[in-house]
Amino acid sequence: MGKLEHRRASARLRILNPDGSPAAGCQVQIDQTSHKFLFGCGVFDAVELMRTNDETKKAFLSERLDKWLKLFNYGTLPFYWGRYEPEEGHTAEPETMAAAKWLGERNVKVKGHPLCWHTACAPWLMQYPNEEILRRQIERIHRDVTAFKGTIDMWDVINEVVIMPNFDKYDNAITRICRQYGRIGLVKEVFAAAKESNPDAVLLINDFNTSVSYEILIDGLLEAGVPISAIGIQSHQHQGYWGLEKLNDVLERFSRFGLPIHFTENTLISGELMPACIEDLNDWQVDEWPSTPEYEERQAREITEMYSVLFAHPLVEAITTWDFNDGCWLGAPSGFVHKDNSIKPAYTALDKLIHGAWETHEQLVTDSEGFVSFTGFKGGYRLSAGDGAPFAGSAEFRLEEDKEETASLSLA
Amino acid sequence: MGKLEHRRASARLRILNPDGSPAAGCQVQIDQTSHKFLFGCGVFDAVELMRTNDETKKAFLSERLDKWLKLFNYGTLPFYWGRYEPEEGHTAEPETMAAAKWLGERNVKVKGHPLCWHTACAPWLMQYPNEEILRRQIERIHRDVTAFKGTIDMWDVINEVVIMPNFDKYDNAITRICRQYGRIGLVKEVFAAAKESNPDAVLLINDFNTSVSYEILIDGLLEAGVPISAIGIQSHQHQGYWGLEKLNDVLERFSRFGLPIHFTENTLISGELMPACIEDLNDWQVDEWPSTPEYEERQAREITEMYSVLFAHPLVEAITTWDFNDGCWLGAPSGFVHKDNSIKPAYTALDKLIHGAWETHEQLVTDSEGFVSFTGFKGGYRLSAGDGAPFAGSAEFRLEEDKEETASLSLA
Repeated sequence: MGKLEHRRASARLRILNPDGSPAAGCQVQIDQTSHKFLFGCGVFDAVELMRTNDETKKAFLSERLDKWLKLFNYGTLPFYWGRYEPEEGHTAEPETMAAAKWLGERNVKVKGHPLCWHTACAPWLMQYPNEEILRRQIERIHRDVTAFKGTIDMWDVINEVVIMPNFDKYDNAITRICRQYGRIGLVKEVFAAAKESNPDAVLLINDFNTSVSYEILIDGLLEAGVPISAIGIQSHQHQGYWGLEKLNDVLERFSRFGLPIHFTENTLISGELMPACIEDLNDWQVDEWPSTPEYEERQAREITEMYSVLFAHPLVEAITTWDFNDGCWLGAPSGFVHKDNSIKPAYTALDKLIHGAWETHEQLVTDSEGFVSFTGFKGGYRLSAGDGAPFAGSAEFRLEEDKEETASLSLA
Repeated sequence: MGKLEHRRASARLRILNPDGSPAAGCQVQIDQTSHKFLFGCGVFDAVELMRTNDETKKAFLSERLDKWLKLFNYGTLPFYWGRYEPEEGHTAEPETMAAAKWLGERNVKVKGHPLCWHTACAPWLMQYPNEEILRRQIERIHRDVTAFKGTIDMWDVINEVVIMPNFDKYDNAITRICRQYGRIGLVKEVFAAAKESNPDAVLLINDFNTSVSYEILIDGLLEAGVPISAIGIQSHQHQGYWGLEKLNDVLERFSRFGLPIHFTENTLISGELMPACIEDLNDWQVDEWPSTPEYEERQAREITEMYSVLFAHPLVEAITTWDFNDGCWLGAPSGFVHKDNSIKPAYTALDKLIHGAWETHEQLVTDSEGFVSFTGFKGGYRLSAGDGAPFAGSAEFRLEEDKEETASLSLA
């Protein structure tokens, strides 16, 4: 486990008897109850759950989300402008807020995605001249970041800037203003707006382009003083797993900035691969894209390898798999569960990492002074009286930093 | 000629008799003697001419340079650090200065290339720690830009920044500091040094990478306030002519910044093409790379088309063909003359444009007030008495801006 040392911390805890005296020679149980690392997944269905009145659908989505909650501690909610505000002034704030709060109550950290993007943008913006589009973009950021402050404190501020001004599939308001103000000019504006509205938020830039272009963009943005909290890297692998070489190359190149790295949109599929000749994944339209047992094993292997490499890298702080269930984006077999919510081998494989290999559970015996020491994965913990202890009860604590922590806990 | 209007200007000139009265009804001859547009070529042989004592070589180089001077008004001189200062403190300043002055006396504008580059860099720099390498790089720029001020006022300040920190063919001092300070951090430093030493100089960034990466780099540099005077674009086409589509795409994408564009290193060859699979042109090593009559015609056609497109673009201010003669870089048949100085069809084709289609020569007759009006390509002009004029003599003038100029000239 040498390469995972950055994920762990040591603690020294003192256990007291109910009368305040050190509990010497007592058996105690240490159980990790949550992760500091962000194990994430898209969770758009939470909004759907808030929105629907159909009881059958509700039950189905609840079952799906139960499985989701057993695996993950971090979710991405949709803020695509065109869907969030399909008609100017009428937003999906109520159901999105309800979903965010519902997730928060279940100890899930939430990220909003995205505040600015040329795709899935509001078509009504195109009636305005560029300076007005930019003004409304800034206003939209102020409005939404402010409204969700305290509930959502992490944002993909802007998405896919590398291609943004060159995007030529169709006219849209954001490509227009990116052309006019330049990539860096626009990114500066949108980050400034987000920062103004929530100074403590984690603000990400996010891109599928992992070439030198994205490196140069980040270099330019940091030089321009843009307050990027973390670098977002998409890794939709519908055309095949990147493999270790590409994965390590991307990690090495984007580590140069010393910023946290988030894998924001990961996809590994359990079906036939999309042909390599497709340049824009959106161009691949199929009626059926089946998940098969053979490819499900492949998906599970790739998930295991990729998550292991990322978890071992000191700068990676979050991994988000894009689709929880099959049949979402592009209709791909990209989920941890099938369309009917039955789990796939990838679910089990990831569970074995998150809640197996990377989760700390130990039985310890206190010394004569009542101390126990242990090293565990960073996160939340429960300490409880072990078998045969002369008392009952439990205590919660957090193990966050890689330093020795000393605490006195009384299991009363 | 509608698409060349930006290359031309109109003038209204008044001709006076030696006694000061208007020369009415006189025939005058208008001859363009130089171009505002920079028609350039590498001219490293000028340094060689200054350096050699071998009379045979001198005569051969003089013959070559005579042909060079008949075609071009703009030359690039070498400042590769490793060759300019092979031993620390011992530079090629004397012969380079002599060459630059020799060219200046022949009305050739000179550009120095390059002040910072990871290739052909001084190996002795690698003994120093990074901060010391950067200090010496800045010092080198101050030294050379100051020494040549007034003789060379145009510089390729930094070369090939897109690949610079990722360059992995061999260790070198400049890749090291580019990794440490970042692309934009390093470019800022070297441009600041050049600007400090010669505030009025034309300062270029130059790259062979014409992808979106270079766009993003320029966007970042401009946002960071780097005083880029013009965007340098290399176009070594050893693997085949770009063609109109790529050429127009590059022009469109790099026009977005509104800066002048210089085609700094153009190559079109008159031989077999280098295979497309070669990624770094330097990897192509051949014993012989013959120029053939058939390919010489192709080269002439491509030169004609490419120069015509570039001359027609309002932001393009300079085109430099890299090699004047065959057998220079990579041993390619890339010249306007063969190795023995005999001219190739491309020479004649370009001459027909520069000193033919794009050069103004007119015979005019003054009106009753002594005025003549004409529209001509921008540059230097000689006005002389035409056949049957009642006086002799000539006058020089410049036609620079696209506005009506009125001048009184007395041909005494």
